[in-house]
Amino acid sequence: MYKTQTAPMGWNSWDCYGAAVTEDIVRQNAAFMAEHLKQYGWEYITVDIQWAEPTAENHEYHPFTELCMDEYSRLIPAVNRFPSSADGKGFAPLAEYVHSLGLKFGIHIMRGIPRQAVHQNTPILGSTQTARQIAKTDSICHWNTDMYGVNPEAEGAKAYYDSLFTLYASWGVDFIKCDDIARELPHEETELILLSRSLQDCGRDMILSLSPGPALLEKAELYKQTSNMWRITDDFWDSWPQLYEMFDRAREWCIHAGNGCWPDADMLPIGPIKQDYDPSLSTEFTQDEQITMMSLWSIFRSPLIIGGEMTKFDDFTMGLITNEDILKMHRNARHSHPVWQKDIDGTEHILWTAVSSEGGQYAVIFNTGEQDSSVRIPLQDLEIYHPVHSTELWSGQTSEIAETINVSLKKHGAAVFYLN
Amino acid sequence: MYKTQTAPMGWNSWDCYGAAVTEDIVRQNAAFMAEHLKQYGWEYITVDIQWAEPTAENHEYHPFTELCMDEYSRLIPAVNRFPSSADGKGFAPLAEYVHSLGLKFGIHIMRGIPRQAVHQNTPILGSTQTARQIAKTDSICHWNTDMYGVNPEAEGAKAYYDSLFTLYASWGVDFIKCDDIARELPHEETELILLSRSLQDCGRDMILSLSPGPALLEKAELYKQTSNMWRITDDFWDSWPQLYEMFDRAREWCIHAGNGCWPDADMLPIGPIKQDYDPSLSTEFTQDEQITMMSLWSIFRSPLIIGGEMTKFDDFTMGLITNEDILKMHRNARHSHPVWQKDIDGTEHILWTAVSSEGGQYAVIFNTGEQDSSVRIPLQDLEIYHPVHSTELWSGQTSEIAETINVSLKKHGAAVFYLN
Amino acid sequence: MYKTQTAPMGWNSWDCYGAAVTEDIVRQNAAFMAEHLKQYGWEYITVDIQWAEPTAENHEYHPFTELCMDEYSRLIPAVNRFPSSADGKGFAPLAEYVHSLGLKFGIHIMRGIPRQAVHQNTPILGSTQTARQIAKTDSICHWNTDMYGVNPEAEGAKAYYDSLFTLYASWGVDFIKCDDIARELPHEETELILLSRSLQDCGRDMILSLSPGPALLEKAELYKQTSNMWRITDDFWDSWPQLYEMFDRAREWCIHAGNGCWPDADMLPIGPIKQDYDPSLSTEFTQDEQITMMSLWSIFRSPLIIGGEMTKFDDFTMGLITNEDILKMHRNARHSHPVWQKDIDGTEHILWTAVSSEGGQYAVIFNTGEQDSSVRIPLQDLEIYHPVHSTELWSGQTSEIAETINVSLKKHGAAVFYLN
Amino acid sequence: MYKTQTAPMGWNSWDCYGAAVTEDIVRQNAAFMAEHLKQYGWEYITVDIQWAEPTAENHEYHPFTELCMDEYSRLIPAVNRFPSSADGKGFAPLAEYVHSLGLKFGIHIMRGIPRQAVHQNTPILGSTQTARQIAKTDSICHWNTDMYGVNPEAEGAKAYYDSLFTLYASWGVDFIKCDDIARELPHEETELILLSRSLQDCGRDMILSLSPGPALLEKAELYKQTSNMWRITDDFWDSWPQLYEMFDRAREWCIHAGNGCWPDADMLPIGPIKQDYDPSLSTEFTQDEQITMMSLWSIFRSPLIIGGEMTKFDDFTMGLITNEDILKMHRNARHSHPVWQKDIDGTEHILWTAVSSEGGQYAVIFNTGEQDSSVRIPLQDLEIYHPVHSTELWSGQTSEIAETINVSLKKHGAAVFYLN
Repeated sequence: MYKTQTAPMGWNSWDCYGAAVTEDIVRQNAAFMAEHLKQYGWEYITVDIQWAEPTAENHEYHPFTELCMDEYSRLIPAVNRFPSSADGKGFAPLAEYVHSLGLKFGIHIMRGIPRQAVHQNTPILGSTQTARQIAKTDSICHWNTDMYGVNPEAEGAKAYYDSLFTLYASWGVDFIKCDDIARELPHEETELILLSRSLQDCGRDMILSLSPGPALLEKAELYKQTSNMWRITDDFWDSWPQLYEMFDRAREWCIHAGNGCWPDADMLPIGPIKQDYDPSLSTEFTQDEQITMMSLWSIFRSPLIIGGEMTKFDDFTMGLITNEDILKMHRNARHSHPVWQKDIDGTEHILWTAVSSEGGQYAVIFNTGEQDSSVRIPLQDLEIYHPVHSTELWSGQTSEIAETINVSLKKHGAAVFYLN
Repeated sequence: MYKTQTAPMGWNSWDCYGAAVTEDIVRQNAAFMAEHLKQYGWEYITVDIQWAEPTAENHEYHPFTELCMDEYSRLIPAVNRFPSSADGKGFAPLAEYVHSLGLKFGIHIMRGIPRQAVHQNTPILGSTQTARQIAKTDSICHWNTDMYGVNPEAEGAKAYYDSLFTLYASWGVDFIKCDDIARELPHEETELILLSRSLQDCGRDMILSLSPGPALLEKAELYKQTSNMWRITDDFWDSWPQLYEMFDRAREWCIHAGNGCWPDADMLPIGPIKQDYDPSLSTEFTQDEQITMMSLWSIFRSPLIIGGEMTKFDDFTMGLITNEDILKMHRNARHSHPVWQKDIDGTEHILWTAVSSEGGQYAVIFNTGEQDSSVRIPLQDLEIYHPVHSTELWSGQTSEIAETINVSLKKHGAAVFYLN
Repeated sequence: MYKTQTAPMGWNSWDCYGAAVTEDIVRQNAAFMAEHLKQYGWEYITVDIQWAEPTAENHEYHPFTELCMDEYSRLIPAVNRFPSSADGKGFAPLAEYVHSLGLKFGIHIMRGIPRQAVHQNTPILGSTQTARQIAKTDSICHWNTDMYGVNPEAEGAKAYYDSLFTLYASWGVDFIKCDDIARELPHEETELILLSRSLQDCGRDMILSLSPGPALLEKAELYKQTSNMWRITDDFWDSWPQLYEMFDRAREWCIHAGNGCWPDADMLPIGPIKQDYDPSLSTEFTQDEQITMMSLWSIFRSPLIIGGEMTKFDDFTMGLITNEDILKMHRNARHSHPVWQKDIDGTEHILWTAVSSEGGQYAVIFNTGEQDSSVRIPLQDLEIYHPVHSTELWSGQTSEIAETINVSLKKHGAAVFYLN
Repeated sequence: MYKTQTAPMGWNSWDCYGAAVTEDIVRQNAAFMAEHLKQYGWEYITVDIQWAEPTAENHEYHPFTELCMDEYSRLIPAVNRFPSSADGKGFAPLAEYVHSLGLKFGIHIMRGIPRQAVHQNTPILGSTQTARQIAKTDSICHWNTDMYGVNPEAEGAKAYYDSLFTLYASWGVDFIKCDDIARELPHEETELILLSRSLQDCGRDMILSLSPGPALLEKAELYKQTSNMWRITDDFWDSWPQLYEMFDRAREWCIHAGNGCWPDADMLPIGPIKQDYDPSLSTEFTQDEQITMMSLWSIFRSPLIIGGEMTKFDDFTMGLITNEDILKMHRNARHSHPVWQKDIDGTEHILWTAVSSEGGQYAVIFNTGEQDSSVRIPLQDLEIYHPVHSTELWSGQTSEIAETINVSLKKHGAAVFYLN
């Protein structure tokens, strides 16, 4: 199975354009990334859900609407939204453009086979079976009407998934975000295994990312054996309660990160988002909350997938995603885990630690309570029993620490220390 | 709301022909009932599931298959199976024939709107809305692919159900067996209420029968307010464990029977059944078990719906359904309930009682254990503190009882006493 | 097993005196009952919990306190509270007095063996085993520290319970209210069976009443086989929410009443109660609520056990418990059950019915909502399809009813009709 | 709070002597440890349950038996079993002896106050309240009758616990194994907090160890804030299913180990055990299983508490507990966690890793399946992307590894690699 040494970094169109992103927007964001972010490690450009839907307008789906499909029951890009896909070229031209920028190209898919293929009973490439014969009759997505699940026991089921990934490989796809699958276990477990096998058989290295969460902790080994990353929450948006809850999820999943397996805390809703509704909308997270989010995602080694419209990012947002020390922690952290969660100075704090693959140790202290605080963290809480040199990675401030880290924190804020 | 003083009695095509019954078979059974059973109170002739499916062969459904539908998203009979329905006449000619015999006519429907109507986005009679606009996107039947649920909040939803029952009334339908609804509460509760209201508004008296079970006991009042009968089990077949379990269900539901409200223990799988698979198949219940079933259904006042191919009934089976005293108990029993369930003579027994609307008291003793028995039932268990005259209704045997009913029972057998 | 044809009626000391009742009070209430209530069927006088505790003051228990006990590990009355029990006479003199009034005498006991017997390891009459050897080490009451459970498997366990009931029989006890047992199933099921067998072996007819509730519905047959009555709720006091909840419990249990088996809705907290705290306290139920309570208990055939200090009852309270027609319904109702529960006239109502053992039918309509109402009840809801003569039993008002009972009800009120 | 940098190592009397250990046995094992094991880091000698019970014989408890107690409701050693405790000296002489060997001394206690103190209502040192006033009436241990829980809200409760730990401190106790508490949360949470505070206030450094398990994962932070170690299982014995299950528990708890907080996998049932029943009994674990156990406990950093009779240990057992490299891993492992669990070569394997505080990385591979195996572990699974030097710590075998660790394993066996 294809594996990456570090968690994927990139951009995805959902947070800013929902189901309605267009080729122009994708190209603009890709160009921006290539120019401003590539050197920091950002590389994936992913077109999210319903690129086969010609009439998509925003984050809402049109139930039971007609999708663009080829003669083999496979969805293809809507030409009105992705003009370069005309003449049966699919996403190949767009992928080629992204590759030309030195970046990688990803697409969203839904588990299963289009309902319209099933109703029209269209052919499956490489099989004498037809769409109706491989559909699983009672397997539907609960929030979108595009697909039926595939019955993994059916003759033709593997041929269908093989035909999909062969097509995507021919387009030059590097990243598959597969939806309606991560939290559907154990019900759809065999379909996940089938789909993963087809992807691995297709002859091209692709990341397999599973959505939506929450993934099931008791299925951790299965996710690790079939995919590269899997969502540990339902859709994550710019609200503190969701961010606060991520600490619980990260604690439960942290031991499963590493070596090509990345529990996924979801996209970063930063900068301008929900542009399909109103171009003036942007994240409601405070700057401290964004620091907290970026610090937690990085020490936890979640994939980092930007959700905002990058071409309009302000300086703060650019600073957030181009801090070299933080991104180094994202690459080099090993064996990350929380140390404790407790009240200090009248407000709740959470301490995380990790070692660095280059030596030294990381410590991140989060103020998850509702008031600012001043905290003292004994080095022995980190099992350090000697003086260390400390660098706070957001401020760059350095100091020598004999026994205790002292730090002031804003409510919902964080500080990241590299100790060596 | 239309109500009947006694629980419906009739015949249904499912147990013997599954989804594949034809007009000929229905007519033959109707004629048989009119000649041999009508005088005992049997009157409903019901065509069960998928009469709109031209290729139906047996008890299996064809997933995603095309159904016969009119221009207003309403299913209509498949002409190849129901020839008299040609030229848009629907079930009117068949209903007319059944009525001409002095009987009543019923049909099966599924909750919701045909998937093909939704995908083709066909019109709704009496509304500017279309099929796609009233479908509930995540509401499907888990065992049949014909329909989507209807969103009761949608404009056009009531118009759709009104258009259905208006059509059925125009055909002369007397009995609606509505499927995929009884056990789908509370999820589909508002759709049930909407559907029931449309039926009551249609201007014709029709029985509304809800399937499949098990219905939810905590929703008893809702069933009573929206329907005439509701299934208290999943599909009932000719197996002793299912029959044994019915004692529990009948105990739980008995207080809800009466005045047009009939908890439904499902069809009687007697005589030749599953004729679509093999004409030589018939019920696997022993004669004692059939006596037990008929005795329980009757004192509990379940609807009595024959499931077998009536034209081939043998003498035993005919005797089972034409015992006038038993059928009188089915009509006259009031306030029925179990008295106790305990081991006697090394095997389990269950005692039921009811009063008769004509005076006197019924007592039914069931041997639900695994060996024959000889039991003595003190009259005081029935709160009778004086001598009574007793008639056992299956044998006709009479006696005077001072203090104790003495009776021998076969395993899985029953005896029914009328005491006065 | 000893059984009564009608549910027990009597008085119990708990509601008015808690753990602290004295012989004087018992004698006064017995005398009052004999003079004023005996002719209506009231007969049991029961001394509730902790008569062996010399220092009891009110409804609170003294944890781990020393109790009066004989040399065989059996509790005996505290002489300072029950002077006639001196010289080892136990309750015999008090029982004799109660019997002299033509009434019956009951006592409360706790399941198990006194903790002090276990710690002192005192003898068991009729066994070489001692208290410590028959105690069940992890079986305690969760609200009182007097006892350990008895291990039914232990040698000596049956001898212990035999010695208890032999003693009670020698005193002349007619009624045993056994506590800490009804809701302790299935854990303490074998202890219940053992205890019941000892009681039946003792040679004297005694009612066995099990507390506290809620009893477990799935154990209904066990209660019926081991006892005469069992509590279907936790302690019932004078609050409308508790009374309202009793409708659910009565619905679930109604089919199990009759022939010596009485699901028990608990004592009637009427008139002066909690006299141990303040002699000015009396029931907080409104008069309508008391009418509702008495009507429900009576048609449901719950035991009727007065909880208030009878000698201070006012006219309303006396009227409540001396209405001959209501008490006749309590004796004669058969096959009682609720008919429906629904909103009428903007407020909730519940309809119950029963037949009378003397012919005719009872119907009780309860307004369980929060406003007064005027309701019309079609006779057909009661499965009556002909005109009837009607008597409302609280007012005595009679009428001829063609099709519909019309009645005005206060919120939380009730009307009781005898129809013939 | 007193904390140790490494997880405690020692011996406990339970596995070999149950409730019946004597002073002689303790002294012999202490002397053996001082001579043979002290240099490897083993140091605690703990007297387990019921040292106050004069008649204890084996692993069974005598219910409700009388215990040795001082005038302040505090249990004291039974002089017949611990002669040096005569004249009110308690465990002071024995502790002094253990200290004289360079070791530390521990005792077992039960949460709560002796039942006999409550029944006799004896005084509490430093309070005007008495035993009966601080007992929690419905708080008992479910497997032992010695104690009642203490009501933390009661006046006198803190004084009681203070008086206990003051006494233990005066004896020179270094380690408290507190029973009937770890899995009794949240019910007994406030009693745990109270007890922990008293221990910390007593002026002597003592380890607080909580039993029995399984501790509640959701209460991890509470255990960390109130104690040093807490049992993550019920009693662990020498059976493979229990050992196999420990992998799940260790996975869940691993992130909570370190800096004086030690999730406790329970004692090591090695060598001769259950000597109270039969001196010929010894562990039923195979040698491979003992290797697996010692490897898991060590990388997980569980406390290591020997359960067997040490003076009779054979060479294999001595080798198991004196492997300097394994014990170094137990001291130096940091951030330990499982990497994966999957089938290889037809049998299940589990891989754990940890970093060493001295540099380098540990990897432990377990064969948890039912057949021997030969496995290849890519270094990249450990996130090592360069060649390393490897030492297998049980065999001492070294090698240079370019990409893959190759190892043969017996079923239920393990290999431990130090990679640097």
